[in-house]
Amino acid sequence: MAQDKKFVEDITPMDVDFAQWYTDIVKKAELVEYTSVKGCLVIRPYAYAIWENIQKILDKRFKELGHENVCMPMFIPESLLNKEKDHVEGFAPEVAWVTHGGNEPLEERLCVRPTSETLFCEHYANIVHSYRDLPKLYNQWVSVVRWEKTTRPFLRTREFLWQEGHTIHATAEEAIKETEQMLNVYADFCEQALAMPVIKGKKTESDKFAGAVSTYAIEALMHDGKALQAGTSHYFGDGFAKAFGINYTDKENKRVFPHQTSWGVTTRLIGAVIMTHGDDSGLALPPAIAPVQVVIVPVAQHKEGVLEKANELYTRLSKLYRVKLDSSDNSPGWKFAEYEMKGVPLRIEIGPRDIENGVCVAVTRHNREKTIVALDELESKVGELLTAVHDGLYAKALANREKHTYRCKTMDEIKERLEKDGDGFVMAMWCGEEECEDKVKEVTGVGSRCIPFEQENISDVCVCCGKKAKHSVCWGKAY
Amino acid sequence: MAQDKKFVEDITPMDVDFAQWYTDIVKKAELVEYTSVKGCLVIRPYAYAIWENIQKILDKRFKELGHENVCMPMFIPESLLNKEKDHVEGFAPEVAWVTHGGNEPLEERLCVRPTSETLFCEHYANIVHSYRDLPKLYNQWVSVVRWEKTTRPFLRTREFLWQEGHTIHATAEEAIKETEQMLNVYADFCEQALAMPVIKGKKTESDKFAGAVSTYAIEALMHDGKALQAGTSHYFGDGFAKAFGINYTDKENKRVFPHQTSWGVTTRLIGAVIMTHGDDSGLALPPAIAPVQVVIVPVAQHKEGVLEKANELYTRLSKLYRVKLDSSDNSPGWKFAEYEMKGVPLRIEIGPRDIENGVCVAVTRHNREKTIVALDELESKVGELLTAVHDGLYAKALANREKHTYRCKTMDEIKERLEKDGDGFVMAMWCGEEECEDKVKEVTGVGSRCIPFEQENISDVCVCCGKKAKHSVCWGKAY
Repeated sequence: MAQDKKFVEDITPMDVDFAQWYTDIVKKAELVEYTSVKGCLVIRPYAYAIWENIQKILDKRFKELGHENVCMPMFIPESLLNKEKDHVEGFAPEVAWVTHGGNEPLEERLCVRPTSETLFCEHYANIVHSYRDLPKLYNQWVSVVRWEKTTRPFLRTREFLWQEGHTIHATAEEAIKETEQMLNVYADFCEQALAMPVIKGKKTESDKFAGAVSTYAIEALMHDGKALQAGTSHYFGDGFAKAFGINYTDKENKRVFPHQTSWGVTTRLIGAVIMTHGDDSGLALPPAIAPVQVVIVPVAQHKEGVLEKANELYTRLSKLYRVKLDSSDNSPGWKFAEYEMKGVPLRIEIGPRDIENGVCVAVTRHNREKTIVALDELESKVGELLTAVHDGLYAKALANREKHTYRCKTMDEIKERLEKDGDGFVMAMWCGEEECEDKVKEVTGVGSRCIPFEQENISDVCVCCGKKAKHSVCWGKAY
Repeated sequence: MAQDKKFVEDITPMDVDFAQWYTDIVKKAELVEYTSVKGCLVIRPYAYAIWENIQKILDKRFKELGHENVCMPMFIPESLLNKEKDHVEGFAPEVAWVTHGGNEPLEERLCVRPTSETLFCEHYANIVHSYRDLPKLYNQWVSVVRWEKTTRPFLRTREFLWQEGHTIHATAEEAIKETEQMLNVYADFCEQALAMPVIKGKKTESDKFAGAVSTYAIEALMHDGKALQAGTSHYFGDGFAKAFGINYTDKENKRVFPHQTSWGVTTRLIGAVIMTHGDDSGLALPPAIAPVQVVIVPVAQHKEGVLEKANELYTRLSKLYRVKLDSSDNSPGWKFAEYEMKGVPLRIEIGPRDIENGVCVAVTRHNREKTIVALDELESKVGELLTAVHDGLYAKALANREKHTYRCKTMDEIKERLEKDGDGFVMAMWCGEEECEDKVKEVTGVGSRCIPFEQENISDVCVCCGKKAKHSVCWGKAY
C-alpha cells in the first residue's frame, strides 16, 4: 500500500498547480518523453494509440464525405512559400530551414512545412485544368514544424502531428459549404468521441489564418477555465488560386479561378482531453478513444478458479471492446491506481466471492461508482456503463463550462467575475472594431476566442466603447 | 475510339524502354506528381490508397506479434547522430541539415531523420532500467529523408514513407529471433499480399546496414531482370546500447547491455508491384492491396434497367469487396482502358443482353480472360476470380523469376547467360572474401544481393577464385 500511495502522491494536485499537474500527468501516464531537441517529443505507445483512435474515427468520416488521402513532401522551397503575401508573413518567422543536403549547400533553402497550402497549390496548378477536374477533396495525415519559443506537450510543440484537409472547388458557395461542413464534423467529433462540448464560431479579422478570407474555429473550455482552440476550418476565396496561377476552363469555356479551403485538427486534442476530463488521480479517457476501454483486475488471483474466470471474461469482452486483463503479480491496489492514472473508463474486478455469486464488480473511472454486474449480462452491461462514462464525462465538462461562462455587460463586470469565479468564457457584445477588441484584452486579460454562430443578445452596445454592438463574442484566456 | 487508342499509345512499351515505361505508368495511372524539389514527390490518392492497404495489413500483423506504434521526432541533433561510429559514417553524407529556426541560427544543427536508430536509442536510455522494462517492441510509420543524387519515383526518392520497427531485448538470442521473425513477416506479406515471390537471405559484410551486426533482406526479381531489395531486418547486437549507454539491471542484479534490432519496408514496395506485375496496358494490382478490387462497367447504360442492375450489383458486391461503379458518360471502351491502366484486378461488364440472361461478364485484368458469371452466384464467383488473379499474378512472377535465374559455375558462364538471356538472378558459389565479391561485380556486372537462407550446392568452389566455397550467393543488378 505504501507503493500505491506514493504512486498517487507523485501527481501535483490540480488546484495547487494546474500546469504542474498537467506536466505530471503526461509523464506518469507515459504519454510523452522529452528528447534533446526542445519542443520535439516522443509520442509514446499509449498516447499514440489514442491518436490512432482519433485518426480512425475522423478518417472514416472524411472518406464518407468524399475526401481522399494524399501525401505531399515535407519541404517547401523559399520561393514557393513566398508566393502568397499574407501567408508567408504569418509563417516565415517560425519555420525551420534546411540549408544543406549531405555536404553541399542547397541552391535554394527549403523550409520544413509549417502547413501545406503552398504545396497543395503548386499541385493543383498542375492537375486542375477543367471544371471536370473539380472539386478535389484532399486530406493528409502528417507532422508539421513551427519553431515556437515556448512549448508544452501536445499543446504547443515544435513538431506536431495533424491532419490537414485541402479542397478546391468551382464556386465560392461550394467552398464555403465545405468550410462549414468540416467545422461541424470537428464539433460532432469533439462531442461524440471526446465527450467535450465546444463552441462553434468565426474568428475575428485579427485572429484569422494567414491568407484566409475567413477562419472558423471550435473552442473548448478546459478544467482551469482557459480556452483551447480545438480545430479550425478556413475559407480562402480565390486568393491562393490567383497567387499560384490555378485556373480552370468552366462549362462556358472561360478561364476562371477556383475557390479553396483548408481545415485541421492536431495532437493538441490529446491535451484537450487531458485538461477537460483529468483529475488528481490521473487521466480520464472517453471510451471512444481509450486504447483500453475495460481493464479486468482479478482479486485474490492465486485462489482456484479466479484467473480462469478472469480469462473467460476477457475472451467474452474482447469480442466487443478493447480489453486488457492484468494478471501480473502487482497488488490489486497498485493496479487500481495504475489504470486510474491511465484513465481506463471501466474497471472490472473479479474475485472468489464474486464468482460464487455469479457477478463481478464494475467501477467507472470518472466517478468511481461501483456496480454489481451479473456475469450473464456482462456484455450488455459493459456497453451501458461505457455509454454512461461518455455521458458522465460530457455532463461534467458541460457543467464546468456553464459554471465558468460569464455573461457581462461592462468591462468592470468582466473583471469582477473573473476575479471572483476564476478564468472562464466571457460572453459580451462587440462593435466590430479592432481597437475595442485590443482594449478588452488589455484591460480584462481575455481575448476574443470567436464570434459564436449561435449569437446571443446580452446587450445592445459594445462592452468596450458603448457604441452599437454588431456581435456577441466569446472571450477567454487561451492555451 | 480515337480517344481510347491514344490513351494506350501514351505508354512506352516495356520492351522498347523499360525505364520510360515505368515513368509513363506512374504518371498516367496518377500515382505521383513531381514538385519543384527534386526527388520529393506528391503521392496521389490512388497510390496513397495502395500504401494505406499495405499499412493496414502489415500494421495488424505487427500488432498481433506484440508491437506497439510510437512516434519519434523528425530531427536528430548532429551530436546524437555522431554517437555510433559506423552508423554516422553510413548516413551523414546523405542527410538534410536544418540550420535555422525562424530567423535565428540554431546552436547545433539538426538533421532530418534518414532513419531513427539514434532517436530510439536516446529514448531507450531514458526508459529501460530493469529487466522488467524489456522487451520493448516499437514501430513507427513516418517519412524519412536521404539526399540522393539520382532519384526515381517510389524506388529512390529524397523523402519516402516507410515503417521502421525498433526493438530492444534482454538477450542476443531473443533479438536474433525477432530479426528473423520480421524478415519472415515481410516475405509472407510479399507473397500473400503483393503476389511477389522473394528470396530470403543475409547481406554480405560489405552490404549490411551501417551499425548492424547482420542484415537480412528479401530480394525480388523485377520484370526486366533487375533485383529489388524489398525489405530489410537488422540485428545490432549490443553495439548501439554501448554507444548510447543503454543498460539494465538483470535478475541477478547486475548491470548489462540489451540487444537491439530494426526492420523496415518502404513505399518502394509500390514500385516493386508496378515492375513485377505491370504490362503495356498499365498497372496490374494484386487484389489484397488494390484500392478498387472490382470495377463495374455498364454497357449501353442508357437502355432501360441497365443502370439499375449495375447499381444492384454494386450494392451486393460492396458488402464484401472494394468496388467502384463507373456510370460516367465516357464510353465503355474508354473505361476498359482506364481501369486496365489503373490495374483494377476484376472488371464486371453488364449490358441489356446479360441482364436478360441473368449473367454478367467478368474480365480478369492480368490475362484478360472473360468468364460468364450467373448473377445469383456473383459474390462467390467474384471471390474465386480475385483469388485466381492473385494466384495468376504470383505464378507469372515466379515463372519470370525462374526463367531468369541462372545457376553458374564460372565467371564466363555468368557473362554468357546474362548476355544470352538478359538480366536476372545469378546463383553462384563464393569463398566469402570481399575481393572476390568485388571482382564478380567488376567482371560480370552483377553484385551480391544476398546469401540465401536456402543454400544450394552449385559447385564446391568459388565462382571467382576457385578456392573452397563457403556459400551460394544470389547475384544481380539492383535497383
